[in-house]
Amino acid sequence: MDSQVRVMENTVTNAEKYFGQFCSLLAAYTRKTARLRDKADQLVRQLTDFANTENPEMRATMRNFAEDLAKVQDYRQAEVERLETKVICPLKLYGAHIKQTRSEIKKFKQVQKNEMKQLEKLEKLRQKSPSDRQMIAETGVQRASVDASRITHQLEEVIDTFQKQKLKDLQKIFSDFVTIEMVFHAKAVEVYSSAFQILESYDLERDLEDFRTKMRGVYGRYDAQPFKDTTPSPAVPWALTGQVSTEDEEEEESVEHSAEEDPVEDLRGQGQTPQQ
Amino acid sequence: MDSQVRVMENTVTNAEKYFGQFCSLLAAYTRKTARLRDKADQLVRQLTDFANTENPEMRATMRNFAEDLAKVQDYRQAEVERLETKVICPLKLYGAHIKQTRSEIKKFKQVQKNEMKQLEKLEKLRQKSPSDRQMIAETGVQRASVDASRITHQLEEVIDTFQKQKLKDLQKIFSDFVTIEMVFHAKAVEVYSSAFQILESYDLERDLEDFRTKMRGVYGRYDAQPFKDTTPSPAVPWALTGQVSTEDEEEEESVEHSAEEDPVEDLRGQGQTPQQ
Repeated sequence: MDSQVRVMENTVTNAEKYFGQFCSLLAAYTRKTARLRDKADQLVRQLTDFANTENPEMRATMRNFAEDLAKVQDYRQAEVERLETKVICPLKLYGAHIKQTRSEIKKFKQVQKNEMKQLEKLEKLRQKSPSDRQMIAETGVQRASVDASRITHQLEEVIDTFQKQKLKDLQKIFSDFVTIEMVFHAKAVEVYSSAFQILESYDLERDLEDFRTKMRGVYGRYDAQPFKDTTPSPAVPWALTGQVSTEDEEEEESVEHSAEEDPVEDLRGQGQTPQQ
Repeated sequence: MDSQVRVMENTVTNAEKYFGQFCSLLAAYTRKTARLRDKADQLVRQLTDFANTENPEMRATMRNFAEDLAKVQDYRQAEVERLETKVICPLKLYGAHIKQTRSEIKKFKQVQKNEMKQLEKLEKLRQKSPSDRQMIAETGVQRASVDASRITHQLEEVIDTFQKQKLKDLQKIFSDFVTIEMVFHAKAVEVYSSAFQILESYDLERDLEDFRTKMRGVYGRYDAQPFKDTTPSPAVPWALTGQVSTEDEEEEESVEHSAEEDPVEDLRGQGQTPQQ
């Protein structure tokens, strides 16, 4: 009898202990995931800011990359929300369920205690044993036994239902956990594959040509003069000549590439292919 | 001249600013990932402890599930280490690289400043213009111009190399980031698929039978007697009868399932199939 109740209490205590730990660990896991998402979101913002300071080629690459990184964070956000509703909430509810079972066991122990007292009384009665009293006592003992058995069966049912629910919940909760994680990771693989293509198709040479054209625009003003005009003009070098750039070769290259719209259009075409 | 240096300085300052931010954000991202790993590791330990308190069926399921969860954390650990060596380290090194470029620009500015002074002096000389002096001055101006042009080309090279390296590094670092993340997520999908199979193949009924058998072992001692022995034995219910359980049916079932090794062996067979 005692060992029976002990086994039941252990089952419930054990469940309470571990489900409680699972709940707080998985809640912490979810919080850390949310923090990871926050950091990645910050990175997305910085990448976008940075993209705006770059030439068209890198600008498009960084923007598209940032967009993909943002997509992964959207999936991570969905992961966080699902973990909350399908894993943490059920584990929390389980706490209430355990309390209920614990109070049922307590009630049973109370009934059991009362019966023990009753039986002791009847036993004493029987030992005094005038035949009448013995009859009454024996009937009483029998009735008490039947009651005890009924209550035991009730408790057996309570604990059976409890255990069944516990095992079912465990399987369900961790299956849901695994499914949520699996879906997130699968989506992440998909999006990062696209991001990889974006970074791979970045055209460094085109970007550098853009940059050199811009820089030559600046250099041109400066170093065009001193080499052509070997006869020193009165107010030669720095201040004034900067305004007009007449060096033919430089000028040609500058025109060739300064039409910035072309590379942008090309880029858009390129940048979108991996996302199709 | 001024605008040229300004463009260069802006390029470097901009790179310094954003690479610095990328570095600290990605370092934070990596730290958060490590924290997530820590939480999951704790969960693995709790799952293993819990498994040891359960019946063979759930014990095997939880152990195998915990093992898979641990595998994901191993991959996460590899992710953390790779992010450190292939993303954060290069970004940190970039800081040193930027400092070097900055000092090269500073050196250039110094040389430029000296040359300006030199030219001003020569210009004054020329304005006084006795023919001899003018000759010397004009030659001096020409030489100074050639020098200035040489230095400009050097700086052009410095900034060109810097920009090229910057763009290359950006592409490389973020490609590495994406690859590391992609590999981790792909591995996680793989392992979670196995974990899902493990949880799916968990046999609740077998586990419950085990549990009921154990509980009946306990109940048996108690409720076997009062129903069979309707004639009350002198020292009936609780204390003594608990020692021997003679209820045939119960005993049979108990024997049928108490050979705990069988389900364990079955389980091991089952538990390993999804991992093959």
